[in-house]
Amino acid sequence: MSSVPAATADAPAAPRSHVRVELGARGYDIVIGPGLIDAAGEEIARRLPGVRAAIVTDTTVAGLHYERLSIALRAAGIDHVQIVVPPGETTKSFAQLTDVVDQIIGARLERGDVVIALGGGVIGDLAGFASAIVRRGMGFVQMPTTLLAQVDSSVGGKTGINSPRGKNLIGAFHQPALVLSDTALLDTLSPREFAAGYAEIAKMALIDRPDFFAWLDANREAIFTGGPERVESVRQSCIAKAAVVAADEREEGSRALLNLGHTFGHALEAAVGYDAKRLVHGEGVAIGTVLAHRFSAKLGLCLPADAERCEAHFAAVGLPTRISEIPGAPLDVATLMAGIGQDKKVRRGSLTFILTRGIGQAFIASDVAPAGVEAFLTEELTR
Amino acid sequence: MSSVPAATADAPAAPRSHVRVELGARGYDIVIGPGLIDAAGEEIARRLPGVRAAIVTDTTVAGLHYERLSIALRAAGIDHVQIVVPPGETTKSFAQLTDVVDQIIGARLERGDVVIALGGGVIGDLAGFASAIVRRGMGFVQMPTTLLAQVDSSVGGKTGINSPRGKNLIGAFHQPALVLSDTALLDTLSPREFAAGYAEIAKMALIDRPDFFAWLDANREAIFTGGPERVESVRQSCIAKAAVVAADEREEGSRALLNLGHTFGHALEAAVGYDAKRLVHGEGVAIGTVLAHRFSAKLGLCLPADAERCEAHFAAVGLPTRISEIPGAPLDVATLMAGIGQDKKVRRGSLTFILTRGIGQAFIASDVAPAGVEAFLTEELTR
Ligand SMILES: NC(=O)c1ccc[n+]([C@@H]2O[C@H](COP(=O)([O-])OP(=O)(O)OC[C@H]3O[C@@H](n4cnc5c(N)ncnc54)[C@H](O)[C@@H]3O)[C@@H](O)[C@H]2O)c1
Ligand SMILES: NC(=O)c1ccc[n+]([C@@H]2O[C@H](COP(=O)([O-])OP(=O)(O)OC[C@H]3O[C@@H](n4cnc5c(N)ncnc54)[C@H](O)[C@@H]3O)[C@@H](O)[C@H]2O)c1
Ligand SMILES: [Zn+2]
Ligand SMILES: [Zn+2]
Repeated sequence: MSSVPAATADAPAAPRSHVRVELGARGYDIVIGPGLIDAAGEEIARRLPGVRAAIVTDTTVAGLHYERLSIALRAAGIDHVQIVVPPGETTKSFAQLTDVVDQIIGARLERGDVVIALGGGVIGDLAGFASAIVRRGMGFVQMPTTLLAQVDSSVGGKTGINSPRGKNLIGAFHQPALVLSDTALLDTLSPREFAAGYAEIAKMALIDRPDFFAWLDANREAIFTGGPERVESVRQSCIAKAAVVAADEREEGSRALLNLGHTFGHALEAAVGYDAKRLVHGEGVAIGTVLAHRFSAKLGLCLPADAERCEAHFAAVGLPTRISEIPGAPLDVATLMAGIGQDKKVRRGSLTFILTRGIGQAFIASDVAPAGVEAFLTEELTR
Repeated sequence: MSSVPAATADAPAAPRSHVRVELGARGYDIVIGPGLIDAAGEEIARRLPGVRAAIVTDTTVAGLHYERLSIALRAAGIDHVQIVVPPGETTKSFAQLTDVVDQIIGARLERGDVVIALGGGVIGDLAGFASAIVRRGMGFVQMPTTLLAQVDSSVGGKTGINSPRGKNLIGAFHQPALVLSDTALLDTLSPREFAAGYAEIAKMALIDRPDFFAWLDANREAIFTGGPERVESVRQSCIAKAAVVAADEREEGSRALLNLGHTFGHALEAAVGYDAKRLVHGEGVAIGTVLAHRFSAKLGLCLPADAERCEAHFAAVGLPTRISEIPGAPLDVATLMAGIGQDKKVRRGSLTFILTRGIGQAFIASDVAPAGVEAFLTEELTR
């Protein structure tokens, strides 16, 4: 991918897309476009006049993109401090949360001020949670810098950290006041991280947007190279996720659809011990989503052709689709079943899965028999 | 005070009072009465059938009252675990929060299960905050065991911990599903802690309930000895606080009235270094509330007779009303002014105080000149 385009004062303003997340008094805008970081100051100042800010970021993103954001905020008169944490999933801990919270309070930010998350989903989840609990809730702005964060984690208000006993077990629902997604920042992302984020876009389409899935089929190359199609794919994903969130903000029912591919995916991640060298989250989602479609086909819920179309799509963008593609020691069915049993979507004996009746027709199935899953996975392991 | 009456199976059910906190979907009941702890299981099971519970308590309260609660829950079939923390304000820390959260998760409680806070305001604030963030919010039941907690901290949904940089700076708004106030549990409280809690009752009346204040004037002795008047005083305080909270759940305006006496009170607590031997919170509130009335009289906002009536009331129940009553080295005006300046109710130069136009006629004054406060305190220091 190409390097970050330099901001020039006389460059024509790049086209921007807007998505409105409709959550009543907690509703907010998502603004999407290449080069948006240089306009971050004015976008924030216009909506939140007079605020001060704490920018939470990780060392990697800080080195790549912090300076431009700082210049943009300064130009808009937004006084700010920087809070830097290490990159990676282990940063979503009580220790880092304590430290970030202490720095926000130390900067004397008030309830009406904002925490800005500049980074991937780890930063968004950690900084968002910190902003939810300092002074019982202060302002929050998401500036997602990974594709996963732009299409998934920055939308919907889930924030949090991990417990030693499990991922994302501690947190808050805290909606941002604004999301600024600069799609050009994704140019510094590794191709593997980009593809992993793309898996969540395809997943979103496969839940309830068959037309979006057809559009992705036709435009996937342009999304990877960047250009208006990338912006459009982020926009459509945000629209799709925002609709699911608006229908069930606090995950009491239908929001579980967003877990399509994730019960299998989490079991795969757990089985490799969350070793990102072997499998990153989005790759687990890609394989998991294919498994959800193949399992649905096996149960006679959808056509085998739908499962094949799903698999072909992920394979075409270079994502793994079979368990046997995961490098390293082969996995076994007992380990996978243990992972599925520990997933929070289990209820007294029967398993809850997101299954599908076809492309874009996912549904919550809460009565799946473990024995059927086990038989299915045994076949899949050797495919 | 007398010892805890033993629960007997054939004792007639003691009369119970109910207060409904009207917060729409987050509304809940406060049940008040002596001996209520023995009915805790049925009260919870009736409203929240099938829940499991984690009871958070401190070592002091655990020794006095845990066993009875455990028996009551068992009788109602409520499976539960105990989580014990040390007593005292320092327990409201990130370290204790991390530990309590870990134990709740370790007990495999789900979102629909409940955390029960059995203790004073420290336990309610800590356990409530833990319940707000485990799985992004689980059920919560308050069982306040101090007078302060029954009339103040258990009502209104504020939960949280302290930062090394200031009290209550980290937390969440998380309403309980139920509050069970057993007024007989207060019999094991020291007279000093009881009187400190009473200061919050009188404060509540002085905000906007002149009739309640007159009733307190007539019934204060019976409240201290226990009996129906104690239950009634708790009930009226809860009604008064619930009304303020319902009008402004997230403290964006009028809820600040609850800070009557607290800007002066916090400055006094800070000036003695939060040394509870010299001054407990409720004593600071008593002196602070008298100061707020005297300052209002000095500014010509209320009659001197109102300030005298307020002072006489606190003095009659044995609470301090003058700064000079605080034992130890005399305080000085510079220290007090620094404490007032650090209080969160300051805004760019002018100070915000809760002042009054008379008994039960408090209001928010956001333009108080620091010089006037300083002159007033200089006089008060030698009174
Ligand atoms: N809150 C939600 O609803 C939600 C939804 C999905 C996932 N998540 C969470 O998101 C996290 C995963 O997000 P992620 O994949 O973005 O992880 P991440 O934040 O760890 O980012 C991945 C890596 O990319 C680097 N990076 C970020 N932006 C970059 C850029 N522009 N250029 C170069 N490198 C860059 C980071 O430093 C990091 O090393 C997980 O913790 C997951 O639980 C949350
Ligand atoms: N959340 C709110 O809205 C709110 C409002 C006011 C105060 N608070 C908080 O409440 C806390 C103060 O509450 P508190 O005064 O109840 O303090 P506390 O919880 O520390 O209790 C005071 C002492 O009494 C002991 N105790 C409790 N119940 C007892 C009983 N029945 N018999 C004998 N001993 C007993 C405790 O072990 C403790 O040592 C502060 O942290 C304050 O910030 C919160
Ligand atoms: Zn995902
Ligand atoms: Zn108080």
